Amino acid sequence: MEKGKQSEDGVMTQSPTKPETVGPVSLLECLKAINAGILTPQESIAGCLSRIEAYDAEIMAFSSLSETALHDATQASGPLSGIGMAVKDIFDTYDLPTECNSPIYHGHMSGRDAAIVAQARKAGSTLLGKSATTEFAFLQPGTTRNPHNLEYTPGGSSSGSAAAVAAGMAHLALGTQTGGSIIRPAAFCGVTGFKPSAGLLPKVGIKEFSWSLDTVGLFTATVADVAFAASVLTGRTLKIAPEAQFELPRLGIVRSHSWSEADPGYRQQFEDLIKSLKRFGVDLIDIEPSDTHIAAFHAHQIIQDYEARQALAWEYSTHPDQLSPLLKQTLDFAQTIKPSDYDEARMCAENASKEMDEHFEDVDALISLSAPGPAPKGLASTGSPIFNRIWTLFGLPAINIAGLTTQDGLPLGVQIIGPYMADQATLHIAHWLEGAIKRHQER
Amino acid sequence: MEKGKQSEDGVMTQSPTKPETVGPVSLLECLKAINAGILTPQESIAGCLSRIEAYDAEIMAFSSLSETALHDATQASGPLSGIGMAVKDIFDTYDLPTECNSPIYHGHMSGRDAAIVAQARKAGSTLLGKSATTEFAFLQPGTTRNPHNLEYTPGGSSSGSAAAVAAGMAHLALGTQTGGSIIRPAAFCGVTGFKPSAGLLPKVGIKEFSWSLDTVGLFTATVADVAFAASVLTGRTLKIAPEAQFELPRLGIVRSHSWSEADPGYRQQFEDLIKSLKRFGVDLIDIEPSDTHIAAFHAHQIIQDYEARQALAWEYSTHPDQLSPLLKQTLDFAQTIKPSDYDEARMCAENASKEMDEHFEDVDALISLSAPGPAPKGLASTGSPIFNRIWTLFGLPAINIAGLTTQDGLPLGVQIIGPYMADQATLHIAHWLEGAIKRHQER
Repeated sequence: MEKGKQSEDGVMTQSPTKPETVGPVSLLECLKAINAGILTPQESIAGCLSRIEAYDAEIMAFSSLSETALHDATQASGPLSGIGMAVKDIFDTYDLPTECNSPIYHGHMSGRDAAIVAQARKAGSTLLGKSATTEFAFLQPGTTRNPHNLEYTPGGSSSGSAAAVAAGMAHLALGTQTGGSIIRPAAFCGVTGFKPSAGLLPKVGIKEFSWSLDTVGLFTATVADVAFAASVLTGRTLKIAPEAQFELPRLGIVRSHSWSEADPGYRQQFEDLIKSLKRFGVDLIDIEPSDTHIAAFHAHQIIQDYEARQALAWEYSTHPDQLSPLLKQTLDFAQTIKPSDYDEARMCAENASKEMDEHFEDVDALISLSAPGPAPKGLASTGSPIFNRIWTLFGLPAINIAGLTTQDGLPLGVQIIGPYMADQATLHIAHWLEGAIKRHQER
Repeated sequence: MEKGKQSEDGVMTQSPTKPETVGPVSLLECLKAINAGILTPQESIAGCLSRIEAYDAEIMAFSSLSETALHDATQASGPLSGIGMAVKDIFDTYDLPTECNSPIYHGHMSGRDAAIVAQARKAGSTLLGKSATTEFAFLQPGTTRNPHNLEYTPGGSSSGSAAAVAAGMAHLALGTQTGGSIIRPAAFCGVTGFKPSAGLLPKVGIKEFSWSLDTVGLFTATVADVAFAASVLTGRTLKIAPEAQFELPRLGIVRSHSWSEADPGYRQQFEDLIKSLKRFGVDLIDIEPSDTHIAAFHAHQIIQDYEARQALAWEYSTHPDQLSPLLKQTLDFAQTIKPSDYDEARMCAENASKEMDEHFEDVDALISLSAPGPAPKGLASTGSPIFNRIWTLFGLPAINIAGLTTQDGLPLGVQIIGPYMADQATLHIAHWLEGAIKRHQER
């Protein structure tokens, strides 16, 4: 492949296409090689660094790089030794700045690690660098590009985290989701994205945007990888035993009220997959979108914006000219939301959540699209969170499963959503579905 | 009054007693004087500064002082112009360090304001300084002393916030409560403490200890003061109109399972007050402590410790020798709490909370003691949160009402607890009760 060449002013003069990356590198495969003595933890981290060296000038997944990663790897001990980690640049890290992709935080050193970063380091993983985020994890994109085609967005807001894993530059990446900021970029970049039940991973030390919605999650190559990392980081039994046998899941198909907005080719692939799942013997029922859920969808935005205006009160009050017009306008508008609107939105969300819980009496998990289509072309937008919002609002575990692609080779994601705090069962179903998608494609 | 003299090594050589403070200075009285042209905002702040100058060498409510307060007051505009504010030293402030009373954070500049600090400044209030906290708002005391008697603890963890308001050094103080860290110091210092419904005031930019429990709240001289400040800071209708008429409240008396641990003289004063309330025509019923509530009381500690070990993961992992033995031991123990214990504790809390909600069908608010007694003597402990924990766990609005005292002149608090998000009604009842306590004492 011929790479795009940059002119002196840094503008691409030739269309870049797909860079020659190794693709996602499985965390479990890496640990297996280390345990077998084929690879040392330090060599594993050196591999990440050489891939960053090779690809990141084009992909721009990292906003800053650790200079001590190789040394840190020699000191590491624990179940994640040798695992290279990218951390979204809204998490505090004592050794690298936390800039939130905002000039207001240029060079900002928090002087400490966010809780989950400290836990991940203690478990042996090595911080490779901070991965690029949209501005304050909202909508204004950064410069990261999609490893599958550099002319396309990687999605957001956890743009760099998804891209770093997709290009094999990191084995594990930390991200957050407030609307669709984990599942969407995971889908666009063709990796596993796991948004756990609200509260499963600690948020202490992140730059918050909406405290009711912000959820910490993980990116890896495969579902088994993410289940293992989540097990280590939570101390819970979430990992998938290699020889595990599963009963066929009962799945509820959610074709949300935004279904008609989804890409027709993507919808067709989803329906084809559903047919295969039926053939495989899966029990499938349709979950009709109810008025309550549509109301909850709108409530999400009121809650997000009302809380964001408070979470960013200092930035808005003291540095309004350093906010992007997109964020500034959103916060301007948010000043007009009344406390009673917010209270009503929260009540609406609570009722809708209870109604959704009832569906889990009939099914083990829900299946839906991860986004309205493949990654949109261009870097001006990170795409839409309309297929993710209510799952974030309800605090339910959600997983993006990679495997499907467009004819042009862009990834298409399938989303599994489980009951609150049933993260283990949901990961198991997602793991099973990952295999089922492979069988479906081999048909 | 003769002040205690310090020897060269800083130890008090003579027992200090009650310093000659002006007592709490009402925020609303202050605003009235400003509006009447009797006082300028700058003079009002100068008054706070001169009282700090006069009293704080003994009381030690402040851990750091703003050098720009007088200048800031000239620039201030908004409904809180002229109001001097003390901010607990776990809230980020761009101009003063946030040290959390821990050597780990010595000199730590966050470079930004916590959300509520930014909102309070925007509303015109002036930051006087950071008020002393216990270490990370847990139990290890700071050096602050009770303005009513310097040999007694001011309570904690919001020690400096309560003491600063009690001595008239600040009109308004910000604090947090995870167990009993607002209501208890307010009771010990004889001021109004308001722990609003969970989530009413934003937590963004505080050093978290337990995210399910940490609640931001306020200290002022009177209930009407705190209702006014809360109105301004939330944009909600919470303030009490001067001419407001109230129906007599229906109150549920909570003599919790720890009742026998309370000071007998305090209990007697409480029962005498209840008799007066009956005479005044208040409808009073007894709420018996149930097994579920006792279980929730224990669940509080499991949730707090399990979350604290995550919230302080970085500090515990990198600076264990700089934690107090009390906190270190708590976090050591917390490593042994299983995720399943935590999940069970959260479930227990949810059930107990629902059971408590049912009582609010029969009563408008609950009345109880604010603490097991007056401030304990000495500075080695900030007292016990046993009368506060479940109200924090349930996220219910709680207010300490000052007025009762021991024979020695130490304040005794009465606590009013209202239904979730019924902060306005709860403040109204507390305001009524504040007057009723005066009438009770004049009997």
